[in-house]
Amino acid sequence: MTSYKVHYFDFRARAEAIRFLLSYGGVNFDDIRFEEDVWPKIKPTMPFGKVPVLEVDGEKYSHTIAICNFLGEKFNLAGSNEIEKMQIQTAALFIYDLIGKCEDITYYYKDAFGKEHYEKEVNKLINDIIPTALTLFDGIVADNNGYFVNGKLTWVDLYFTSLSEYFQGLFTWAELKHDANFVDKYENLKSLKDKVLAIEKIKNWVEKRPVTIA
Amino acid sequence: MTSYKVHYFDFRARAEAIRFLLSYGGVNFDDIRFEEDVWPKIKPTMPFGKVPVLEVDGEKYSHTIAICNFLGEKFNLAGSNEIEKMQIQTAALFIYDLIGKCEDITYYYKDAFGKEHYEKEVNKLINDIIPTALTLFDGIVADNNGYFVNGKLTWVDLYFTSLSEYFQGLFTWAELKHDANFVDKYENLKSLKDKVLAIEKIKNWVEKRPVTIA
Repeated sequence: MTSYKVHYFDFRARAEAIRFLLSYGGVNFDDIRFEEDVWPKIKPTMPFGKVPVLEVDGEKYSHTIAICNFLGEKFNLAGSNEIEKMQIQTAALFIYDLIGKCEDITYYYKDAFGKEHYEKEVNKLINDIIPTALTLFDGIVADNNGYFVNGKLTWVDLYFTSLSEYFQGLFTWAELKHDANFVDKYENLKSLKDKVLAIEKIKNWVEKRPVTIA
Repeated sequence: MTSYKVHYFDFRARAEAIRFLLSYGGVNFDDIRFEEDVWPKIKPTMPFGKVPVLEVDGEKYSHTIAICNFLGEKFNLAGSNEIEKMQIQTAALFIYDLIGKCEDITYYYKDAFGKEHYEKEVNKLINDIIPTALTLFDGIVADNNGYFVNGKLTWVDLYFTSLSEYFQGLFTWAELKHDANFVDKYENLKSLKDKVLAIEKIKNWVEKRPVTIA
């Protein structure tokens, strides 16, 4: 039997999609979480010096999108032809770009550029970057019968759902008072999220997972 | 015969990997380039409102990494098993992250945060972010017999090579006087780049492509 381990901080954040997929696939996995103060020791043992990492039978692999694609293939969530595979990756990469922007602004910009610049950028994030992206994603899900690609469940739907609550985590983390429940304002995205969270194996995982800030 | 069109600005930048792969595959493609002033008109006709876009038989697909993976599969440059496929994507995604950081800092930060912050960030980019990433990539190529994954040519080698000269483009664009020929300082990366540029079909493309700033 293949052994799976997830290595990450004690957050959902960028690792949760991997945990969703492993749960969906019905495989057991070691959910290894560490505190930030031990990260400098762990970093050199991780490929590319980053986490999340998926360990498969003792070998470590890195980068959420690549890992999700790998697990998506394994659990029949990666589309049925090369065009669908590409469309799943495309949607995931645009979601990835959005989350990266959110992390940069709420987390990195906070200390780097001073209060005035930070507030201006957060304002742009809330009033422009996030709604523009979510409006676009909502339209894509509407056009694809309730899923990101071709009217059927694929790994990008799990990826999106796992990240949809991350907005609030980032905003809480950065001590931003703004309500960050952005996704629920979009009918098609909310309905997709609800569908994914209603999948028995995902539901079970969400019920038993550790409670964390993000 | 499948028809291919590449839609992008008149730059190599993020589209060049796609042009490299189509050239490597020996297929004809329309290399559609437009000026920045017409972009607002073109934007709504592109999936996700972004370019580069690859049009295949009249259908448009977006995001460089997803497109490269698709073309890599087509032209036998995507690895021979699921683990290799993941490793290729992983390397490409870390290259993508580095390039994104470079674009953010040289291009976006320039006007957004004032001279002092900008100079500090550019300094960090040159003295920390770029060398840290390239040292890591160089080690990976050293460990994999001269390629990014498993000692053989895959699409991530073409992706990396196409972007290696983009550093200079970005620095010139941002009017930074610093020598941005970073890659050539790393023995394994330089040798990989030279190998890719010596491939007959890539060489022919590089000789005939339009000369652009980035």
